[in-house]
Amino acid sequence: MMFVLHPGADQEKIKSFINEFEEMGFSPLVSEGTERTVIGLVGNTKVLDVHSVVETHDIVSYGKRITEPYKLVNRAFHPDDTKVRINNIVFGEGGFQVISGPCSVENEDQIIQVARAVKESGATILRGGAYKPRSSPYSFQGLHQDGLRLLSLAKKETGLPIITEMTNMNQLEYFDDVDIIQIGARNMQNFDLLKEVGKCRKPVLLKRGLYNTIEEFLMSAEYIMAGGNEQIILCERGIRTIETMTRNTLDISAVPLLKKVSHLPVVIDPSHAAGIRSMVSPLSKASIAVGADGLMIETHNDPAKALCDGAQSLDLKQFDELMKEIRRRVEFEGKTLG
Amino acid sequence: MMFVLHPGADQEKIKSFINEFEEMGFSPLVSEGTERTVIGLVGNTKVLDVHSVVETHDIVSYGKRITEPYKLVNRAFHPDDTKVRINNIVFGEGGFQVISGPCSVENEDQIIQVARAVKESGATILRGGAYKPRSSPYSFQGLHQDGLRLLSLAKKETGLPIITEMTNMNQLEYFDDVDIIQIGARNMQNFDLLKEVGKCRKPVLLKRGLYNTIEEFLMSAEYIMAGGNEQIILCERGIRTIETMTRNTLDISAVPLLKKVSHLPVVIDPSHAAGIRSMVSPLSKASIAVGADGLMIETHNDPAKALCDGAQSLDLKQFDELMKEIRRRVEFEGKTLG
Amino acid sequence: MMFVLHPGADQEKIKSFINEFEEMGFSPLVSEGTERTVIGLVGNTKVLDVHSVVETHDIVSYGKRITEPYKLVNRAFHPDDTKVRINNIVFGEGGFQVISGPCSVENEDQIIQVARAVKESGATILRGGAYKPRSSPYSFQGLHQDGLRLLSLAKKETGLPIITEMTNMNQLEYFDDVDIIQIGARNMQNFDLLKEVGKCRKPVLLKRGLYNTIEEFLMSAEYIMAGGNEQIILCERGIRTIETMTRNTLDISAVPLLKKVSHLPVVIDPSHAAGIRSMVSPLSKASIAVGADGLMIETHNDPAKALCDGAQSLDLKQFDELMKEIRRRVEFEGKTLG
Amino acid sequence: MMFVLHPGADQEKIKSFINEFEEMGFSPLVSEGTERTVIGLVGNTKVLDVHSVVETHDIVSYGKRITEPYKLVNRAFHPDDTKVRINNIVFGEGGFQVISGPCSVENEDQIIQVARAVKESGATILRGGAYKPRSSPYSFQGLHQDGLRLLSLAKKETGLPIITEMTNMNQLEYFDDVDIIQIGARNMQNFDLLKEVGKCRKPVLLKRGLYNTIEEFLMSAEYIMAGGNEQIILCERGIRTIETMTRNTLDISAVPLLKKVSHLPVVIDPSHAAGIRSMVSPLSKASIAVGADGLMIETHNDPAKALCDGAQSLDLKQFDELMKEIRRRVEFEGKTLG
Repeated sequence: MMFVLHPGADQEKIKSFINEFEEMGFSPLVSEGTERTVIGLVGNTKVLDVHSVVETHDIVSYGKRITEPYKLVNRAFHPDDTKVRINNIVFGEGGFQVISGPCSVENEDQIIQVARAVKESGATILRGGAYKPRSSPYSFQGLHQDGLRLLSLAKKETGLPIITEMTNMNQLEYFDDVDIIQIGARNMQNFDLLKEVGKCRKPVLLKRGLYNTIEEFLMSAEYIMAGGNEQIILCERGIRTIETMTRNTLDISAVPLLKKVSHLPVVIDPSHAAGIRSMVSPLSKASIAVGADGLMIETHNDPAKALCDGAQSLDLKQFDELMKEIRRRVEFEGKTLG
Repeated sequence: MMFVLHPGADQEKIKSFINEFEEMGFSPLVSEGTERTVIGLVGNTKVLDVHSVVETHDIVSYGKRITEPYKLVNRAFHPDDTKVRINNIVFGEGGFQVISGPCSVENEDQIIQVARAVKESGATILRGGAYKPRSSPYSFQGLHQDGLRLLSLAKKETGLPIITEMTNMNQLEYFDDVDIIQIGARNMQNFDLLKEVGKCRKPVLLKRGLYNTIEEFLMSAEYIMAGGNEQIILCERGIRTIETMTRNTLDISAVPLLKKVSHLPVVIDPSHAAGIRSMVSPLSKASIAVGADGLMIETHNDPAKALCDGAQSLDLKQFDELMKEIRRRVEFEGKTLG
Repeated sequence: MMFVLHPGADQEKIKSFINEFEEMGFSPLVSEGTERTVIGLVGNTKVLDVHSVVETHDIVSYGKRITEPYKLVNRAFHPDDTKVRINNIVFGEGGFQVISGPCSVENEDQIIQVARAVKESGATILRGGAYKPRSSPYSFQGLHQDGLRLLSLAKKETGLPIITEMTNMNQLEYFDDVDIIQIGARNMQNFDLLKEVGKCRKPVLLKRGLYNTIEEFLMSAEYIMAGGNEQIILCERGIRTIETMTRNTLDISAVPLLKKVSHLPVVIDPSHAAGIRSMVSPLSKASIAVGADGLMIETHNDPAKALCDGAQSLDLKQFDELMKEIRRRVEFEGKTLG
Repeated sequence: MMFVLHPGADQEKIKSFINEFEEMGFSPLVSEGTERTVIGLVGNTKVLDVHSVVETHDIVSYGKRITEPYKLVNRAFHPDDTKVRINNIVFGEGGFQVISGPCSVENEDQIIQVARAVKESGATILRGGAYKPRSSPYSFQGLHQDGLRLLSLAKKETGLPIITEMTNMNQLEYFDDVDIIQIGARNMQNFDLLKEVGKCRKPVLLKRGLYNTIEEFLMSAEYIMAGGNEQIILCERGIRTIETMTRNTLDISAVPLLKKVSHLPVVIDPSHAAGIRSMVSPLSKASIAVGADGLMIETHNDPAKALCDGAQSLDLKQFDELMKEIRRRVEFEGKTLG
C-alpha cells in the first residue's frame, strides 16, 4: 500500500504517520520525489482500508493498494488454466461449448421440443429458466420447482447436461439434478448467494453484472472460490453503457482481459448482450474469434409467443443455421465443439 | 403500445399484423404518416413484450410502450404524498429525518457511544449494519445476530428507532425489534428479497442500485408495494458514472424527479454518494435545498479504526457541527426536524 | 411525432392542442387507449422540437419522434452499400483495408522506416498524425505542416495512400496530398469542422466520439453528407464505460448495427479501443469476424520511445505477425485484403 | 512515477530496468513488498508516458503517475481563490452571479425584451447564442455575426455584460464587445480553440464536456491558463449517465471537488443539466446550497416557440419568481448577488 503526501507536508506529521504504522507492524518506506513524498507500507495490508487512511491523515493526498484484491482467481498465483468438466465435456483446454435453450421453461412440450432440436443442431448443454428474476412484478416469474422437474425430463430425454439459474439460497435443495448452477447478472453481488454456491461442489456459471467492473466480477468469483468451489465459468453478457440502440453493450475485450488476469474459462452470452435477435450471429462469430470458451444462446420453438425475452431468442431453424457457422469457426480456431 | 413500421411496409403484411392482434383481443389503430405508418394497440397490453413483437414482425421498425410499467407507486394514479411514520416521527409532510450511526455495529461500547452522541446532536433514527454485503470475502462481514442484539440495546438506551440492512430472506425472523428494514443498493433487484419484505408490515428503506435507472428503482418499489407493504422510503445514494474522483456520483435530480412521478418520500445518503468525508457537508446542504425528506449519514466514534467505510464516516464532533447546519437549513425550508 | 397525454387530460385542452397544430399545418390523429390518449402529428415535423412541445403543454406526459433524425446516411432511404474508393482500393464490397502507421509522425527516418515495413507486411494505407489533439498542453502536439510534408515523402516512397487527422478548418489548405481526412473522436461533434470537410471532395474517416451514441455518430456523418461529400468511412474506436482496466470499451456491436441502419462502410481501431498492445490482436480477430470493412492499427519502430500512445503501438515485427493472422481471416470471410 | 512489478520478476530484468532509467537521468527507488516489488522514479517524469513504460517492460504489472498532470489550475500550488471580475461584478469572493437569457438570439425584439426582463428580475449577466453547435444539420444554427450585433445592442440598452459561445477560432475578431467568451461542452477538448482563447485577455467560461472527468476538465482549463489567460470560470452542466429521464445528470459534487483541487470559481447550468424546465428551480436551490459561485439559466419570452432548447427555458415570469428564491438563498449563504 502506498500513500502520496501533499506537497510540503509537515515533517512532524510525517514522523508521527511512520510511527503509527510501525507500531501496527508495518515497515513504512519513504521516497522523496521532486514534488511529493511517497510512503509505502510493507506487510499484511489486507487489514487496512486505503481510503480510511487517506481521509484520517491530513498530510496524505491519496493512497493506492499495490496488489490486486483477488488471490485465488488470480493468474499471477495460479498460472495454469482451470478446466471445468461436466461429464465428458470441458470448458477450456480447446473444448468449446454451446449452451442453448429457452429463457424460461414454459411447459413440457416446449422444453422437450427445444431440447431435442438444439441437441440435433449440435448444442452441448441445455439451458432453461425455472426461477426468473424479472424487473416487473407483473411479468412471468417462472415455473419454479415444476420448471426444474421439466428440465430433468429434458435431460433424461436428450442426455444433455442442464444449466439453470438459482436466485436464492433456499432453492439449493431442488438442484440435485442440475449440472451447472447459474448465478445471474443481477445477483453477481448477492454475496450470501455466492457463499452458498461456494460451499457446494457443482460447477457455477457466474454472469457479470451489467454495471460491474472486471475487478468486481473477479471478486465475486473469489467469493465462490474462497468457499472451496473451484469449478467456475465466467460469463460476459454485456454491460450498460450510454448506447441505447442495443439493450446492453457486449464488452468483447473482457475475454482476453479475464484470461490474462485470471485462470478461469470465459463464455459469452450474445443473446442478452444485444437483446436483438439479428445481432446474435455476428456477435457469436466475434466471440469465437476473440478466444471465448463457449457461447450461451437463447432459442425458442416460437419466439413470438415466448413468455420472456422473445426479442432476442432465435427460432430453432435460425439456431440450426447458426450452429453450422459456429462449427466451421470453432474448427478454424483449432478448437473442438463439445 | 405503439409500433412504427418501416417505410414502404407491405400492405398484405400490415393487414395480417392487424388481424393477428385483433384476434388476440386488441383494437389496432392505424395512422399513416408522411414517411411512416404507425399502429397503436389498445387493450391490456401488459401481457405483450414490445421487443418480441418488433423482432418477430419484419415490417415493424420499432415499438414503444405508452404507459409507465409501474402503477402502485405512480403519482398519476395516487396523487397524494405517502407519509411513512415510525412512532411519532414522519418521512414526508414537512417532517425531515436524520438517520445516523456507524457503517457496522462493531461492539457494545461503540454502538452505545455513537447512539448516545448522535441522539444528543439531533439525529432521529439510529443506523448500524449487522449483515454487511462486502465486495471482498476477506473484509469484515458484520456481527450478524449479535449485531442486531446490540442495536436493540442501543435502542433501549436512547429511545431512537433503528434501521439496519437485511441481505437475505432467512434473516427476517431476527428483525422483530428493527423499526425500518433497509434493502441495500446491491440488492435493489434481488426480487426474492423484495417479495419477502413486501409481505411484512414494517417500513422499508429501499436504496437505489448504483447502476439502475429511476424507472428500475420504481419497479423495485412496485415489487414491495405489490406485496401489500406501502411503507416505502426511497433512498438516492449515488450512481456509478465516468467520474473517478468520487466513489459514486450523487444524482441530486433524482429527488424532484421521484417526487414528480411517484408519491413516496425520498431521502439522500451523502456518505455513500461521494465516499469522501469532506463531501458529506456540502452534499447534505444541497439535499435539504433540493427537497429531500431526510438524510442518512455515517458516523463513527473513531473513523480511522472503523471496520468499514471509515473514509466516509464523520466523527462525532464533525456530526454535531453538521447537525447545527442541518437544523438551520431544515428550518429555512419550513420543515421540522424529527 | 407522437404525444402521450396524462391520464384524465382535460377535454377542452385536448381540443385546443389539436387546433394549435392544425393551424400550424399538421394533421393530428387522436387514439384513445384504455388508460392514456395518444395524439400523432402527421406532416413536416422536422421543424418541431418534441421536448419543447411536451414542456409547454401541461396535458402532455411525453412525446416521441417517429422517424430517425438522419436521412442521407439512412439505409431506409438508400438501401445500397456505399463504397469508398481511394485509387484502386475500396472500403466495402468485399474489400478489406488495413490502415497502419505511428500515432505521430516524429521525423523522416521514423515515418519512412514504418511506412516501408507496414507496406511490406501488407498494410494498404499509411497513417500518421501531424496535428495531435492531446489532453495535456505539456504533451507533444505534433510536427504540424512539417509532419504533412514527411507523410507525403513516405507516400512517394511507398505508393501507399495516406490518412491524417485535421483538427481545425484552417489546416485544409495543407491537405492537398492527403488521401483520407481523419476527424478524430474529440472532434466528432465539432460541427464547424464537419461542415468544412462536407464541402471538400476527399474521403473522410469519421471516428466515433468516446461518449457518443450511434445516433449521434450518424448525425455527425449526416452533417458531412449534407455538405455534399458522400465519401465517408465510419470508425468505431471504443467508448468510455465504467470499466477501468482498458482505456475504452470496444463496442463491437456497433459494426452490425451501423451496417443495419446506414449504408456506409465501417472500420475498427483496436489500438485506441483498448489502449493496450496485447489486446490489439484478439480485437482485430473479432473485428474481422463481426463484419468490419477494415482495421486501423498503430505501429511504431520503437514503441518504448514513441512520443505518443506507445502503450498501444505494435512494433514492426508484431505487426508483421498480426498481418499474417489478418490475411488468413480476411480470406476465411471471403473478402479481399487491399 | 511508480511501477509495480509482477510477483517473482526476474532480478536481471529489474537491474536492467533500473539502469535504463538511471541513464535517462531519473533516480529509481526500489521497495520490496511482501508480494510485489515497487520502483519509484524521481525526476522530471512529465516527459514519460506511464502506460508506454508498462507495455514495453514485461516485468511491470502496472504504473501510476504520482502527481496531478495539472499545475497552473492546481490549488496545491496556488492556494488562494481566483476571482474573475467583469466591470464591478465578481465570480468568487462572496459574489454570486446569475447569467440569463435565451439559448439563441433570434431577433432584435426577442433579445431586447428578454434582456430588459432578466435585468429587471435581477440577473447580472446576459447570455445569448449566436454560433450554435447543434447535433442536427437541419436545426437552427444561430444568427452568427448578426446575433453578436444584436447582443451588443441589448448590452447598450441594459448595461448588462454579455456572454456568448465561440465555436471556432476564426470568430474571435467579432468578439470585441463580448465580455465573457463561452467554450461549450462539445468543445471542451477542442484544443486548438482552447489555445486561441488562452492567448486573449477576456474571461472565459469553460463548460465541462458531457462525458469528461473532473481531471480532463481541469486539463482543459490548464490549456487556457498555459496560454496566459487566468480569467477562467468553470461551469458544470450535467454529465451523461445511464439515467434517461433527464437529458443529463447534474454532478453537484463537482462544485466542492473542483473548489478543493483547483482555485477557480465554479458555476452551474441547471437548464442543460436536466433539460427539463420543472427541474431548474430545485437544481438552482441545490447549487446555491452546495457552494457554487453562480448560475446560468436559460430564459425565453415565448419558450413554446423558441428556436432551440424551449423545453428547458423558463418564461420571463417563471424566471422572475425563481430570482426571488435565488436572492433569498444567496443571502442565507452570506453571499451577495451581483
